[in-house]
Amino acid sequence: MNISTLLSNPQAHEENKRFIDEDLNRQFSHKVLHEGNHLNTAESARAKELDALLGPKFADVPATDVIIDLHSTTTNMGLTLIIAEGDKLMAAAAAYVLQKCGGEKAGARCLIHKFPSLESRPNLASVSKHGLSIEVGPVPQGVLRHDAIERTQKAMHALLEFLERRNQPDQLNELEAELSNEFIGRKVPCFRSAPAVRPGEMSGKIPWPTDEANPNFPAWVLHKSVQDKDFGLIRTGDPLFIDIDGNVVPYSGSHGSPVHLMFLNEGGYYYASSGTGIGVAQRSHFDFMTGQIVEEGVSHKTEEL
Amino acid sequence: MNISTLLSNPQAHEENKRFIDEDLNRQFSHKVLHEGNHLNTAESARAKELDALLGPKFADVPATDVIIDLHSTTTNMGLTLIIAEGDKLMAAAAAYVLQKCGGEKAGARCLIHKFPSLESRPNLASVSKHGLSIEVGPVPQGVLRHDAIERTQKAMHALLEFLERRNQPDQLNELEAELSNEFIGRKVPCFRSAPAVRPGEMSGKIPWPTDEANPNFPAWVLHKSVQDKDFGLIRTGDPLFIDIDGNVVPYSGSHGSPVHLMFLNEGGYYYASSGTGIGVAQRSHFDFMTGQIVEEGVSHKTEEL
Repeated sequence: MNISTLLSNPQAHEENKRFIDEDLNRQFSHKVLHEGNHLNTAESARAKELDALLGPKFADVPATDVIIDLHSTTTNMGLTLIIAEGDKLMAAAAAYVLQKCGGEKAGARCLIHKFPSLESRPNLASVSKHGLSIEVGPVPQGVLRHDAIERTQKAMHALLEFLERRNQPDQLNELEAELSNEFIGRKVPCFRSAPAVRPGEMSGKIPWPTDEANPNFPAWVLHKSVQDKDFGLIRTGDPLFIDIDGNVVPYSGSHGSPVHLMFLNEGGYYYASSGTGIGVAQRSHFDFMTGQIVEEGVSHKTEEL
Repeated sequence: MNISTLLSNPQAHEENKRFIDEDLNRQFSHKVLHEGNHLNTAESARAKELDALLGPKFADVPATDVIIDLHSTTTNMGLTLIIAEGDKLMAAAAAYVLQKCGGEKAGARCLIHKFPSLESRPNLASVSKHGLSIEVGPVPQGVLRHDAIERTQKAMHALLEFLERRNQPDQLNELEAELSNEFIGRKVPCFRSAPAVRPGEMSGKIPWPTDEANPNFPAWVLHKSVQDKDFGLIRTGDPLFIDIDGNVVPYSGSHGSPVHLMFLNEGGYYYASSGTGIGVAQRSHFDFMTGQIVEEGVSHKTEEL
């Protein structure tokens, strides 16, 4: 489908759907932006426009300092601040927002992705020097929820407040002291996504098989015992899916055991182009001055789903 | 958009969207099925096929005895059994299923619509002699939830059990005795939808204004104090929406006060073709032998949202 077709069809803009052809948040790769052998989809074209406006990503000095990418999710992820390992500014920003939003007891968490290269990080937030995604759920696709809007707004205002203060040289020591007071040893609790396993993945996921005729329709459904239990623990052998006949499909232990699950039944991940499946993570910490993971996560053995 | 275009575009079938052109469940009117002056949409064409298979609706003796229409909703409606007033068989069936599914304390309810004519009842369940819709929520659009599948299955199995017993003459007295024992005076508690106000509406709704450029995008958002409080009460002056600037828009009292709200933030009702807005209902009772409403609902004054 080319852009002129889309523009002549206003319906395509009114569908309340995550995308027209494929996931926009997977288009910011060198391959799509510059190599010219990708299909000319609505989203690849839009990604090039955004890269010209906000980047360019694959240059020494991108034009934009920070991209804040606002997302909703159908899953029970609460408020999740997503950053890339090694981004010092966003590490401090995420720590600041986490503190302002009440931390894990208030359902606010940081999620850190480790990327081997810029190319392996194809999301919008990777186009600028620094990027942070604010993920809020549960929110159905195509629905606006007042509580989720307020939660997003609160996080975004805290982030803008941090950036405003960070831009004032006389605030630097004070900011560091505040964060050090909150996070002993500069260690900020976080979840660290499992490394990508499948080609094209941004992070490790447990895939589900799909219908033979439709790669966007799952052949297995998430088991009710884990539904809405985002960031809970699962162990090898625990129920994870049911198949079409209602048989329980247990967790195989493919990503370690015990391990934390996240993005449990995300509507966007039903689409093959976003990478079907369930997110996997470990508890960890990052240093808010370096943005580096400082301790490999050892999951609390007493914690239950 | 005509059907040949759709069939040549397999994407249209993979969009996880409620419809392609317009709401299928509003196409079963004489105007659409027989008068030939409706746009030839994917859904109007499908409605004609279904009417030929399961009806015809506008004939003395429709071919099919019962249609059970399975729905999910983004709203917190629990299990809602929807019937039309005056359908004796479905009244008894709904009472039977309500009892088997634990009634209101287990989040199971009956909703009865009053229709002045067959023409004013444009949903699929109106095509056969008898029809019942099983509505289960909350479920995001385009997502499968194990708990919702099980809940739907349980209601459907109870309904099939009822029909199986109802088909055996020796069971008739026993069924009536069972239901009379459960529902004193044959009165089954239900919610009765408010009468339709706007042209084309199936039942009364409180509309929200929409974006000037997009009739499917609301200009107001449901207030957080009523979100997820389906079947709760609202009074004139209570918060109902927020506008784009965050100002509270109170309930105007347009449908009476106090009144019960339902389908609170239903994703399908963002679409103009389904009728945008929030459902309104009153508590009432129906007689499971006649299917008639026997008592006008007087809302419990002590009940709170």
